[in-house]
Amino acid sequence: MNNQVKELFEECLASSSPEELAILETVLRGFQKKQKNINSSYIGGLLHMERKIKEEYCELTVPISPLLHNSLGIVHGGITATIIDSAMGTLANSILPDGFGAVTSQLNIHYLSVGKGDYLQCKAHIDHKGTKTMVISADVHRSDGKKIAKASGSFFIIRKK
Amino acid sequence: MNNQVKELFEECLASSSPEELAILETVLRGFQKKQKNINSSYIGGLLHMERKIKEEYCELTVPISPLLHNSLGIVHGGITATIIDSAMGTLANSILPDGFGAVTSQLNIHYLSVGKGDYLQCKAHIDHKGTKTMVISADVHRSDGKKIAKASGSFFIIRKK
Amino acid sequence: MNNQVKELFEECLASSSPEELAILETVLRGFQKKQKNINSSYIGGLLHMERKIKEEYCELTVPISPLLHNSLGIVHGGITATIIDSAMGTLANSILPDGFGAVTSQLNIHYLSVGKGDYLQCKAHIDHKGTKTMVISADVHRSDGKKIAKASGSFFIIRKK
Amino acid sequence: MNNQVKELFEECLASSSPEELAILETVLRGFQKKQKNINSSYIGGLLHMERKIKEEYCELTVPISPLLHNSLGIVHGGITATIIDSAMGTLANSILPDGFGAVTSQLNIHYLSVGKGDYLQCKAHIDHKGTKTMVISADVHRSDGKKIAKASGSFFIIRKK
Repeated sequence: MNNQVKELFEECLASSSPEELAILETVLRGFQKKQKNINSSYIGGLLHMERKIKEEYCELTVPISPLLHNSLGIVHGGITATIIDSAMGTLANSILPDGFGAVTSQLNIHYLSVGKGDYLQCKAHIDHKGTKTMVISADVHRSDGKKIAKASGSFFIIRKK
Repeated sequence: MNNQVKELFEECLASSSPEELAILETVLRGFQKKQKNINSSYIGGLLHMERKIKEEYCELTVPISPLLHNSLGIVHGGITATIIDSAMGTLANSILPDGFGAVTSQLNIHYLSVGKGDYLQCKAHIDHKGTKTMVISADVHRSDGKKIAKASGSFFIIRKK
Repeated sequence: MNNQVKELFEECLASSSPEELAILETVLRGFQKKQKNINSSYIGGLLHMERKIKEEYCELTVPISPLLHNSLGIVHGGITATIIDSAMGTLANSILPDGFGAVTSQLNIHYLSVGKGDYLQCKAHIDHKGTKTMVISADVHRSDGKKIAKASGSFFIIRKK
Repeated sequence: MNNQVKELFEECLASSSPEELAILETVLRGFQKKQKNINSSYIGGLLHMERKIKEEYCELTVPISPLLHNSLGIVHGGITATIIDSAMGTLANSILPDGFGAVTSQLNIHYLSVGKGDYLQCKAHIDHKGTKTMVISADVHRSDGKKIAKASGSFFIIRKK
């Protein structure tokens, strides 16, 4: 299989424009981040997510590259949703005691502006923490300071097996 | 830059377990799909999205691999959101006349079950088509037939520049 | 207190236009419906709600009168929400065993068209029934057949005290 | 018709318990508030809504009485939705120039706690104001200070006829 993947890579490389080459590098660096456990998921790696968790809020930053674009050349709404769900989930799990986890049960997003610029930054904070559920809010801003999305989500607290 | 990317690839390859090798292949094949215009975005390529558009509904299928997982080993909620937003957006744009496009203004998702199995399939249909906005619904099922998500979204109709 | 209420009624009556008189009657008939236990809440009575519960769906009908209007002379969005929440809640509670109840934890509504005409009819059905939560959908149509709202809600199953 | 309404009132009065009498009074006072244009809708009157509009926020207060209860004896989720939609709508309309109005296109509510106590207070503020749409947030607190609901809504700006 090793050779097959090598061949595939050579093909990709050979037909890459300079822009595509940069994206190929972004992709491979992202893959490597998961491999090296810098990120805990491939998605986190490929999006080059960086997180800061403080007491009751979580800040997550993602650099914008064409990898994140939809076919119109702006950040895909699903990527914004992924950033939001990651920030909320990270925050939810960070405040739970050992042996408990939080899973998203519902997510509502208002898209306010186009996702473009250098990076997106999402800040999530706890609205409500019950014994079985949590409600978490998040805002996403782009590098020029404009808010591009506002979200709220419900999380279900589960006992991990 | 060519050599730098080659080196990076060699590094990834050298330290890959068999599972990681399979994911590396999935990633490169996805990259190539965008390169060859089989998909219109890197996200579509990397997720290996396949779409079928019929009159007033759109069906989108994505094979599940560890690439889609969150740190708990199940499909990331943001990926499910990406699949939903893609199916809805594809459908919305398919029914608009030339020169018009649709952008997501709001998205609500209920997560009903864990995303796992061979693939996810999302089916979107139009609930309401006005002159300025559309409301679209979508359900996501996994390969064993279980519904894992139910969503509704608002789209804004814009004149393309 | 009896006399005080009587006096208040006389005042209302004395300064009522024919339209206001009709509304006063609607209000009093609604109050009486709760008093006679035809409806289980004052809201149900005042809105003159009628329900039909079938296996896994609930249909709720409300006649439109100026009592339901906002200051623009169309049905208040909150009234549409009340009809939706009532239909969903009635359905949720109807399928639970004795000793259990369902409370709304989240509600999302898309308003599609203006509420006007003779009556509004809401039909709710179960999307998902878990051990701790339910997800329920509902559509609201007006008497001329036009869909005016589409909603989905999350319900939490509780043990009644 | 006058006599018919009088008779109906006498019936209501005659079979009223002291609690019902108090509610009958609340209902009639609410009706009168609309009649006297203290409130601009019957709903606002019956709920005895009081509003304060400041620059970019609106505060709306509603006293709790059994009139607002569902069949479980707590504030009906639809009433909370009505309070939220009223506060948001009032705010939206207050910042628009003459000749323009705002209609709710979508509303999402997280119910966090039981509605009970002396009164509910809703505070709405603008998240986003575009040329065609607005996004507005609102929180509802009860008299003991507990937050019972958190909401966000989309509004469509229309030219009034």
